[in-house]
Amino acid sequence: MKLIGKALIAQGGGPTAVINQSMAGIVAEARKHGEITTIYGALRGVEGIINEDFIDLTQETSFNLDQVAQTPSSALFSTRVKPDANYCKEIFKVLKAHDIRYFFYIGGNDSADTVHIVSEQAKLDHYEFRAIHVPKTIDNDLVVNDHTPGYGSAARFVAQAFAGVNLDMRALSGVYIGIVMGRNAGFLTAAAAAAQTFPEDGPHLIYLPERPFIIEDFIADVKKVYDQHGRCVVAVSEGIKDAAGTPIILSLLTDVEKDSHGNITMSGTGALGDLLTQTVRTALKISRVRSDTFGYIQRCFLGCVSPTDQQEAREVGEKAVQFALANNCNGSVTIHRAGDYTVEYQMTPLVELAGKTKYMPDEFINPAGNHVTAAFKNYLRPLLGTNLPTVAHLRAPKVPKILNNK
Amino acid sequence: MKLIGKALIAQGGGPTAVINQSMAGIVAEARKHGEITTIYGALRGVEGIINEDFIDLTQETSFNLDQVAQTPSSALFSTRVKPDANYCKEIFKVLKAHDIRYFFYIGGNDSADTVHIVSEQAKLDHYEFRAIHVPKTIDNDLVVNDHTPGYGSAARFVAQAFAGVNLDMRALSGVYIGIVMGRNAGFLTAAAAAAQTFPEDGPHLIYLPERPFIIEDFIADVKKVYDQHGRCVVAVSEGIKDAAGTPIILSLLTDVEKDSHGNITMSGTGALGDLLTQTVRTALKISRVRSDTFGYIQRCFLGCVSPTDQQEAREVGEKAVQFALANNCNGSVTIHRAGDYTVEYQMTPLVELAGKTKYMPDEFINPAGNHVTAAFKNYLRPLLGTNLPTVAHLRAPKVPKILNNK
Repeated sequence: MKLIGKALIAQGGGPTAVINQSMAGIVAEARKHGEITTIYGALRGVEGIINEDFIDLTQETSFNLDQVAQTPSSALFSTRVKPDANYCKEIFKVLKAHDIRYFFYIGGNDSADTVHIVSEQAKLDHYEFRAIHVPKTIDNDLVVNDHTPGYGSAARFVAQAFAGVNLDMRALSGVYIGIVMGRNAGFLTAAAAAAQTFPEDGPHLIYLPERPFIIEDFIADVKKVYDQHGRCVVAVSEGIKDAAGTPIILSLLTDVEKDSHGNITMSGTGALGDLLTQTVRTALKISRVRSDTFGYIQRCFLGCVSPTDQQEAREVGEKAVQFALANNCNGSVTIHRAGDYTVEYQMTPLVELAGKTKYMPDEFINPAGNHVTAAFKNYLRPLLGTNLPTVAHLRAPKVPKILNNK
Repeated sequence: MKLIGKALIAQGGGPTAVINQSMAGIVAEARKHGEITTIYGALRGVEGIINEDFIDLTQETSFNLDQVAQTPSSALFSTRVKPDANYCKEIFKVLKAHDIRYFFYIGGNDSADTVHIVSEQAKLDHYEFRAIHVPKTIDNDLVVNDHTPGYGSAARFVAQAFAGVNLDMRALSGVYIGIVMGRNAGFLTAAAAAAQTFPEDGPHLIYLPERPFIIEDFIADVKKVYDQHGRCVVAVSEGIKDAAGTPIILSLLTDVEKDSHGNITMSGTGALGDLLTQTVRTALKISRVRSDTFGYIQRCFLGCVSPTDQQEAREVGEKAVQFALANNCNGSVTIHRAGDYTVEYQMTPLVELAGKTKYMPDEFINPAGNHVTAAFKNYLRPLLGTNLPTVAHLRAPKVPKILNNK
């Protein structure tokens, strides 16, 4: 029996460069199916639901929808609120009042958890209802998925930034430390490796939350690279931890800020980068030591998008609607790699993803724990898209010295 | 009488996204003229000259030269060394030994100063010699010039970054402070204004080194914007100064690092951003206050280039050779705006530029000293290039509330 009613779309968690492609994919696909009578968008995720802050996406032009799809960040705004049982009861009053029968929530593992709680509550309420989680996160930390929409574009930003910084340090020498997002998963930081074209190119060192960060080893690593190349470019994850598993950044922050999911706020401060530069400067007496914290620029930069990521983000939106109608069950749309390189989409039970975190597997991290492997580079390459800008060096021969004063 | 001999190219100061276009422009043009027998490149600016670290650019393929032209940062490497009279004597020994008669130095106002010193020394030595300064700086602070190659691309990066951040803050609200390069000139920070498309778009506040930064006014400005929009996006120049003219960042750094030109190192630390976020958080009790220091990412990011900037950087290289041969004098190639928008190139005496700094003129800064004017936006627009990515918002109508719990 067909389930007829309205659809509701919401976006949760941190924004990405392609999250609106998924939203536009849902809207475009939903318009093709008679079961979905109207398509609402909730403003600010689950907050927008209990407040009945809806907009009628059926009354959006196709042209503008496509323009919004190409605009980074969450066009429906976002939230960090995690609903509990009471919050869910409020949600259902609203859903019932508006006859909403399809709920599409675009977000990460916390959002998958939210969809799971909402769908469980629907069963308790005997409310006929489809709840679909649509994947999104620059952290690439969703289990089951080969990778997640948003990651490829953020990874591309990180790769392009490190390619530029490597050239900068090549011109003026010194040590450079770039702090990259990703929380407890190292995927985004690891993407810096795609900046390497020539054999001596940085990042020469990559530190991930999946391996303990030992300051003495870090100093020794930097010294070795600097002595060899006259420069050292380092990618460091914001989530690096000491041997006891405590995030390094925790020791630097006076006020620890957490969201409703219990996540520590790691971005929005240069403290970790400043600590590491100071440590290198003191230990190695190198004068030119610089650090940048990539922060919020990396996840929504206008005009740095992986075409592959863009296309897949669109498709997971379309598949969410198709699965909801064809399979008649709740779940998460998951991405699976097939061959080298295509993808397949599946519907996976929410409980398999909700609240879980995927980490960099061992085969993606080198034995020394300070860089990635060829297996990771091979994994990453297709996600960045095919039109990456390239880097060239001069290859002109040296001129023989005449005076030889030196 | 024609001056026959070798040409030497060098690059000085901070790298840019298009500095290699100027180098390639010089090489391509020089190859067309018989007076120039061979084209050398000095590695690491003036350091490369006294060390005779030359490469023979006549033996570089056209294809690779074009690839390098599109690669950011200084392909001939750079230096912060400022030659004194003794250093110049050493330079001339080398120039004479290699029969170098044309010297093209691509750089900012410090490099113009270097070219000036070198050309004066040539006169004292009665060495027949042409010394040409080719403009470059992301700071856009060269006098005489309407703008400088490198600025348009860096400005585009800043604009695209702020466009993304504005959308990010729109989705999750809060206060965002982005620290932008530019030393004592506000041009690069001011470019953040190009991120504004919709009336309520950030950056809502822009603080420049050309106006005193009063912390109480800053807090009051942020509060006003935040109360109105629920978010506040702020662009702050790294070079902002207090009422006494002391850079704010000076009070935050334990060790003040200076280059040989006496410039304070302002980048490579998140200290200024962290100070401002802490101040806003304490004064206004807003929990989500974030800061990013754009740092080194902004000047060499691979793949973020203004086509206009790229083209002009190429042309100043070509014109440098043409002026050197046709005008038979020393000088700096300067860019002059004609109409809206084309440019003309002139040869300007080095003494008019050397060591001088251009600041944002009063008509580019609003009366409150916390944003730019329409005149600045009009000045900036053509420099960013015509193919800027655009931003769209959803325009779907609100759905009437049914339960109206709130």
